[in-house]
Amino acid sequence: MSATRYTYLGPAGTFTEAALHTLPEAATRELVPLPSVPAALDAVRAGEAAGAFVAIENSVEGAVTATADELANGAPLMIYREVLLPISFALLVRPGTELTDVKRVTSHPVAQPQVRGWLRDNLPDAVWEAAASNADGARLVQEGQADGAFAGEFAAALYGLEPLATDIHDAAEATTRFVLVGRPGRVSSPTGADKTSMVVWLGDNHPGALLELLQEFAVRGVNLMRIESRPTGHGLGNYCFSIDCEGHLTERRVSETLMGLRRICPQIRFLGSYPRADRREPTPRQPGTSNQDFDRAADWLARCLDGRGEA
Amino acid sequence: MSATRYTYLGPAGTFTEAALHTLPEAATRELVPLPSVPAALDAVRAGEAAGAFVAIENSVEGAVTATADELANGAPLMIYREVLLPISFALLVRPGTELTDVKRVTSHPVAQPQVRGWLRDNLPDAVWEAAASNADGARLVQEGQADGAFAGEFAAALYGLEPLATDIHDAAEATTRFVLVGRPGRVSSPTGADKTSMVVWLGDNHPGALLELLQEFAVRGVNLMRIESRPTGHGLGNYCFSIDCEGHLTERRVSETLMGLRRICPQIRFLGSYPRADRREPTPRQPGTSNQDFDRAADWLARCLDGRGEA
Amino acid sequence: MSATRYTYLGPAGTFTEAALHTLPEAATRELVPLPSVPAALDAVRAGEAAGAFVAIENSVEGAVTATADELANGAPLMIYREVLLPISFALLVRPGTELTDVKRVTSHPVAQPQVRGWLRDNLPDAVWEAAASNADGARLVQEGQADGAFAGEFAAALYGLEPLATDIHDAAEATTRFVLVGRPGRVSSPTGADKTSMVVWLGDNHPGALLELLQEFAVRGVNLMRIESRPTGHGLGNYCFSIDCEGHLTERRVSETLMGLRRICPQIRFLGSYPRADRREPTPRQPGTSNQDFDRAADWLARCLDGRGEA
Amino acid sequence: MSATRYTYLGPAGTFTEAALHTLPEAATRELVPLPSVPAALDAVRAGEAAGAFVAIENSVEGAVTATADELANGAPLMIYREVLLPISFALLVRPGTELTDVKRVTSHPVAQPQVRGWLRDNLPDAVWEAAASNADGARLVQEGQADGAFAGEFAAALYGLEPLATDIHDAAEATTRFVLVGRPGRVSSPTGADKTSMVVWLGDNHPGALLELLQEFAVRGVNLMRIESRPTGHGLGNYCFSIDCEGHLTERRVSETLMGLRRICPQIRFLGSYPRADRREPTPRQPGTSNQDFDRAADWLARCLDGRGEA
Repeated sequence: MSATRYTYLGPAGTFTEAALHTLPEAATRELVPLPSVPAALDAVRAGEAAGAFVAIENSVEGAVTATADELANGAPLMIYREVLLPISFALLVRPGTELTDVKRVTSHPVAQPQVRGWLRDNLPDAVWEAAASNADGARLVQEGQADGAFAGEFAAALYGLEPLATDIHDAAEATTRFVLVGRPGRVSSPTGADKTSMVVWLGDNHPGALLELLQEFAVRGVNLMRIESRPTGHGLGNYCFSIDCEGHLTERRVSETLMGLRRICPQIRFLGSYPRADRREPTPRQPGTSNQDFDRAADWLARCLDGRGEA
Repeated sequence: MSATRYTYLGPAGTFTEAALHTLPEAATRELVPLPSVPAALDAVRAGEAAGAFVAIENSVEGAVTATADELANGAPLMIYREVLLPISFALLVRPGTELTDVKRVTSHPVAQPQVRGWLRDNLPDAVWEAAASNADGARLVQEGQADGAFAGEFAAALYGLEPLATDIHDAAEATTRFVLVGRPGRVSSPTGADKTSMVVWLGDNHPGALLELLQEFAVRGVNLMRIESRPTGHGLGNYCFSIDCEGHLTERRVSETLMGLRRICPQIRFLGSYPRADRREPTPRQPGTSNQDFDRAADWLARCLDGRGEA
Repeated sequence: MSATRYTYLGPAGTFTEAALHTLPEAATRELVPLPSVPAALDAVRAGEAAGAFVAIENSVEGAVTATADELANGAPLMIYREVLLPISFALLVRPGTELTDVKRVTSHPVAQPQVRGWLRDNLPDAVWEAAASNADGARLVQEGQADGAFAGEFAAALYGLEPLATDIHDAAEATTRFVLVGRPGRVSSPTGADKTSMVVWLGDNHPGALLELLQEFAVRGVNLMRIESRPTGHGLGNYCFSIDCEGHLTERRVSETLMGLRRICPQIRFLGSYPRADRREPTPRQPGTSNQDFDRAADWLARCLDGRGEA
Repeated sequence: MSATRYTYLGPAGTFTEAALHTLPEAATRELVPLPSVPAALDAVRAGEAAGAFVAIENSVEGAVTATADELANGAPLMIYREVLLPISFALLVRPGTELTDVKRVTSHPVAQPQVRGWLRDNLPDAVWEAAASNADGARLVQEGQADGAFAGEFAAALYGLEPLATDIHDAAEATTRFVLVGRPGRVSSPTGADKTSMVVWLGDNHPGALLELLQEFAVRGVNLMRIESRPTGHGLGNYCFSIDCEGHLTERRVSETLMGLRRICPQIRFLGSYPRADRREPTPRQPGTSNQDFDRAADWLARCLDGRGEA
């Protein structure tokens, strides 16, 4: 049944699957690994799954460009939930292997910069080779094609391996952010600690366009949480921006900002308002930009129209 | 009956009275000259008159500060109509007087800079003296205390005088703007060519406050038509700004701007939306800031909330 | 000798003269009262005086428009010094006069709003009449044409009068600011607590022009201390702005700002950098805008040109 | 000799090598392919090569993040030249192979999105497999492990292959931009059509920081040509920006902008001013922001300091 199916970027045993299991409803869904981000999202577009769970950014490697580009193009999708997962690696080995036995190690290329320092300090002579995913690296160790795989500790059992070292990560606070994506639908109610995502295109060759775009946020005191530029595919120098801001589309300061963007940008795609994984409530730093300030100003306007502006 | 009474800055025979007569309804009102702008406005505040007609700015002399300060302070009032009057003077003399007879001339001090050039060229030896108003100057000529008065040509008959020269004005396009002021009431319908007036106070000692205030207009493409700074009376360096912008409070781009000002400024007084005397329709110069753009963006927002943002 | 002569807006016995005497060098100058601001300034332009001392703004009444307009137009002049004078009035009477004897009072019209409250409380039945200056009001009392004159207490002796009440002022902190004006010359050295004055014209009909002008200041963290709009005399809606900002033309943040204004405005007139009367040092509120920050950035730029930007 | 050695991202036969050969001096240099961008750049840092030639952005795939991150971190480097290369692919096969024989095709993963449409239309049943580089894909075809490789037509001879189809590219105008990087040195003279590159860090958690950064450019009319956000590696939400703007560091409008960035940003790295590959001269779109405008303003400032501002 597609209504109970979630796709995700597989295979099983990756950080994506681990992150997906932190969503309570994952327990009652059929979780289907697929080989690529486009495949996971296309299953949703085709109605074969209710949701797709994919990484969208990493604090070390940056945007997951496949996800950013898929959300910006093709049939529209919306984000309904986000998950933050601190990333640290275990070195998984076949039972009985000792550190001095490890000559060849493997991982997904994205993991490599995060374990480089650990390798230099602990296995300076080991040879690193790329795997299609961290889980696939574990499989290579299981099959004897490598001696150690950098992967999540949770992948050990799945492949009959043991962690020889854990909590490996070069950058402190390495975190990956995942999103649950579905077909467009009615925006759910605000929780008080929400986030809004969008893709905004700049007009061709308008030098101040990015500045104007940012002013729409600034004048309403709406803080940006993420901004990633992506080429539009129409020649060097043409960008769109994937943006997350704090707040919910039903809040006046957010809706006024998005209407402003819609007016000045040639194209905008609203990607959803959804609860922040960190549950932090936005703290407007400029005077006059809280939700209460917006509501009071609207009340005042109504009184002005009636000649009671000073009441 | 106060409902049919309009006060104005007298005496009869001034440019103010001439401008007031250009309003069609003036024909059916009791027109009461009063000796000062505060007196004319206080009669409205006290319910003794339905409207007060006063000058608010002059293209040569600048703001009529008494009017600006009265509208900014005291019990609230609203502007309902404006009149533009090109200002040119006649030299009024007793019948039979020739130019060579004119030794002493008089006018209100405000008129003096506008006739200075004409005097230098035509009456280099005449002595100028101040009068309480241009009409009062005509009275002084009538009584023989001066030989010529600079006043509106329309004042001649009232004082038994004749114009010896007409169309006297040093600055081309010298214009005075007058407003009809009443007690606060429901804002009337937009005409498509309207103007909105307000007074805005800046917070004490916030250096960027004026910049932020102007950005509220700029980000919505609302053009300023007039901005006058006035001291607040609380020490040097503390100002409020008397502002006219194009558009009507019922237009989204104007109402959003005023709500923005209300949020960021410690105090704001809405002084009315009323038809422009020049009947020019506003021409938004930035893309994305027409009323239609604002309406389309609001429609799009409603669709986004329903998950149909791309429909 | 013109080199030792200072003109001022007379007559003797006014606040202007009192303020002028606070300048140390006034003791060694010939002080010449003249009947108008233009007359005082034209004497400097003509080389008949080394300086002119005139009021430029008042915390209650606003700009002294004659001074603002004279500095903006005609042959260029520069400001070399400023003086702040707290304004409070004395009621001057002929010796022996008691409060109950005072039926007619007089003052310059500008003084009237500042004594209105005192009159209402202390002499509710007295009739007020305009005088050409506060000192001239004292003369009228001396001659018996009025019973009391509102003027500076220092004027009493000059006219054989006595103060019946002192320290009269409706607004707390009423202050008038005066400037010493001379022909343009080399800018004197900065003192660390300086002010820079200028007049800036906006391009015709460019709606965002004032915003852009203010951004030149804001981006360099230069605080505005005064901004007054004045009509240019070319029709309603055309303004120039008389501006004081903190800092000295020899400071990088000030010179960069003025060069920015010069680039974007059709016309600018530099009116001088001179010591602040309040001796307060500017306190840049934005990070990165102190003089030291500007100097460090210039050093860094020089290193970059040599390929040593990270040194 | 290191002074005549250029490293590049190998192997031979890639687009990088083809682009490098468009530089005249490449003919007299020893060209050394290295297996990664960091390896190519580290050889320069270590003094083993005079320059490294690497891709920096692609109009379809976006930033080459390895290059961006290497230039932002580690020992400083500078860009001295750029090359633009239009990207189109040939399908390289062993001599005698026909289209119907092609069952397995290969290329670098970055090439895959650019040939996806061609594959769907011409070889719908072929299986695509990843290669380490496009040149490596050609080697796989040579060795019989694949039937066709998407690579530059210039790679055919190197591997004994023939182009079966040419000019394959899904996106029109697909272009890759390469840069020649060296150790920091004196900035060379401007050509009139130059570009300046830098990396700028935003302060932690300052919401308006990106807006302020862009205003430094906007207020001097300096157009951005590229802006790419990169995570700093210190947790989600912390970015630096890799920026190219038009103009040369020796132009006042550029140097003033960079000094402004240096003042307000916690960290900035100047990456060089060098000739634009497209040889287009910058066209300032805002009035008052040409080099001539900047020079005139500086002249005026010098006159103001001497009291001759109106001369």
